[in-house]
Amino acid sequence: MSLPQQATVVEVGPRDGFQNEHDLVPTEQKIEIIDALSETGLRRIEATAFVHPKAIPQLADAAEVMAKIKRRQGVEYEALIPNARGMERAIQAGVDAVCLVVSASESHNMNNVRMSVADSLEGFRKVAEMAHQHGVKVTGGISTAFGCAIEGWVAPEKVVDMAQAFVSMGVQEISLADTAGMGDPALVTDVIQKVRKKTGDMPLRLHLHNTRGAGLANVFAGLTQGVTVFDGSICGLGGCPFSPGATGNIATADLVNMLESMRIDTGVDLPKLIDCERHVRAILARDLPGQVMKAGATPWAVTP
Amino acid sequence: MSLPQQATVVEVGPRDGFQNEHDLVPTEQKIEIIDALSETGLRRIEATAFVHPKAIPQLADAAEVMAKIKRRQGVEYEALIPNARGMERAIQAGVDAVCLVVSASESHNMNNVRMSVADSLEGFRKVAEMAHQHGVKVTGGISTAFGCAIEGWVAPEKVVDMAQAFVSMGVQEISLADTAGMGDPALVTDVIQKVRKKTGDMPLRLHLHNTRGAGLANVFAGLTQGVTVFDGSICGLGGCPFSPGATGNIATADLVNMLESMRIDTGVDLPKLIDCERHVRAILARDLPGQVMKAGATPWAVTP
Repeated sequence: MSLPQQATVVEVGPRDGFQNEHDLVPTEQKIEIIDALSETGLRRIEATAFVHPKAIPQLADAAEVMAKIKRRQGVEYEALIPNARGMERAIQAGVDAVCLVVSASESHNMNNVRMSVADSLEGFRKVAEMAHQHGVKVTGGISTAFGCAIEGWVAPEKVVDMAQAFVSMGVQEISLADTAGMGDPALVTDVIQKVRKKTGDMPLRLHLHNTRGAGLANVFAGLTQGVTVFDGSICGLGGCPFSPGATGNIATADLVNMLESMRIDTGVDLPKLIDCERHVRAILARDLPGQVMKAGATPWAVTP
Repeated sequence: MSLPQQATVVEVGPRDGFQNEHDLVPTEQKIEIIDALSETGLRRIEATAFVHPKAIPQLADAAEVMAKIKRRQGVEYEALIPNARGMERAIQAGVDAVCLVVSASESHNMNNVRMSVADSLEGFRKVAEMAHQHGVKVTGGISTAFGCAIEGWVAPEKVVDMAQAFVSMGVQEISLADTAGMGDPALVTDVIQKVRKKTGDMPLRLHLHNTRGAGLANVFAGLTQGVTVFDGSICGLGGCPFSPGATGNIATADLVNMLESMRIDTGVDLPKLIDCERHVRAILARDLPGQVMKAGATPWAVTP
């Protein structure tokens, strides 16, 4: 078994986590949390999304968050973008990178952005062009890539087509998202292999929800296929409106703990990250799904 | 990637789960739950342990449980055994199989049974002999095989030596247990390969706690190595006294859901199993870690 020696963890909690919080997280607290995350060795943080404030009021403070965080050298601050208006705002706010997301499931995309998949992709051509002109890196994000809460099975061929569309826009990376948490290691392996066949050495990134407990199993599947970029969400914040009570993203500390146990270098200071998670848990004052913040790190995940 | 086409799930909740419940589960409820589990297609159920009632009062009713459950044809009812006295009681109770457990960590074994690992193994020779004479199948169980909450790292060589000791007793199976939930897919793979090198085609079984979220990742690692027997605990019941607040075993429905999604046949009726888990959750009346009982099955894990 040949595994990568290093991996990059993208912290998406400030976007994917906070947007799912019922009570708005105050802007000052978001900034404090992002600044604390910036000190843990994480190299990429999805700080917010530039979406319509009526669609996601939880992230209406995107510009203020971007303006007030301490931009630490060596950390990329990223944002999710649904359209050209969002891209304009993101450029103005000085983001380092954006993620353009479209769903592999027609019903899910319609539900999310009231557009067909084809229209979403067509709209993204201009958005990607805007990003290129301003030196902003672009991730092509494909949600429901391993199943959809509305449609169920999603054909891997559809994911491959969309990945090719993103490649033709000159994106720097393709993110495959298990939005519904229906992926399993065999399916994740299969989709990765099919996408690779058509997109060559385009870097892949995995965004894996832990809705049915298989999040880290799917990370391991990705590692066996040479994927080295994985999303995590602090404390496992986030979720899916279709699965009330179920967990959302993989907790970042759980992800880093597994990778570092396996001697895959993430550059993250795990004890610092666990402190961050415990701090966020104290702020939100409720039980959260992250396991390692409760159990503590695996001893050999923290020794040099 | 070559994966097995079928796998056997061993339900250990009635033993590993109930023994960790602070409030005793009434005997009648245990029997009702075991009987319901017997109807789901599970082929192996660890129903109880024959241990000293002062050591584990939660399982003091072992003989009564075994006497009163409906013994369904095709289901093996198993028990955990610490010593010859437990074996005598188990034989009297008519168990189909026993698991003899010793810890790969000296301090953990001392803590558990007040004996050195060598003394435990020596004592098990006679116990295994008793089992053979009565046609009772024997699993050699090695706990803390992937790390110990007291000692930390456990040398794989120690696990290999113990596995060889069990082989010499004529056991039918060796179970590697991640008691502390410190295993990761690379370590699990490494230990399996090292044990296999010295024990040949002795069937292996994995008992993987989800303490740090990597339970199903380690199942996938086992599958890639051809392991086909995995423990699960209904609702994810169980835990570890060293990790308060952390989860214990993999929830059986989460395990079956992942396997069936991957088209690995378990023989289990997943919707029935999920009903069982929801019933147990209602009885225990508190939040429990199982994910699939909350989110529902992956659609293609339940279609034929």
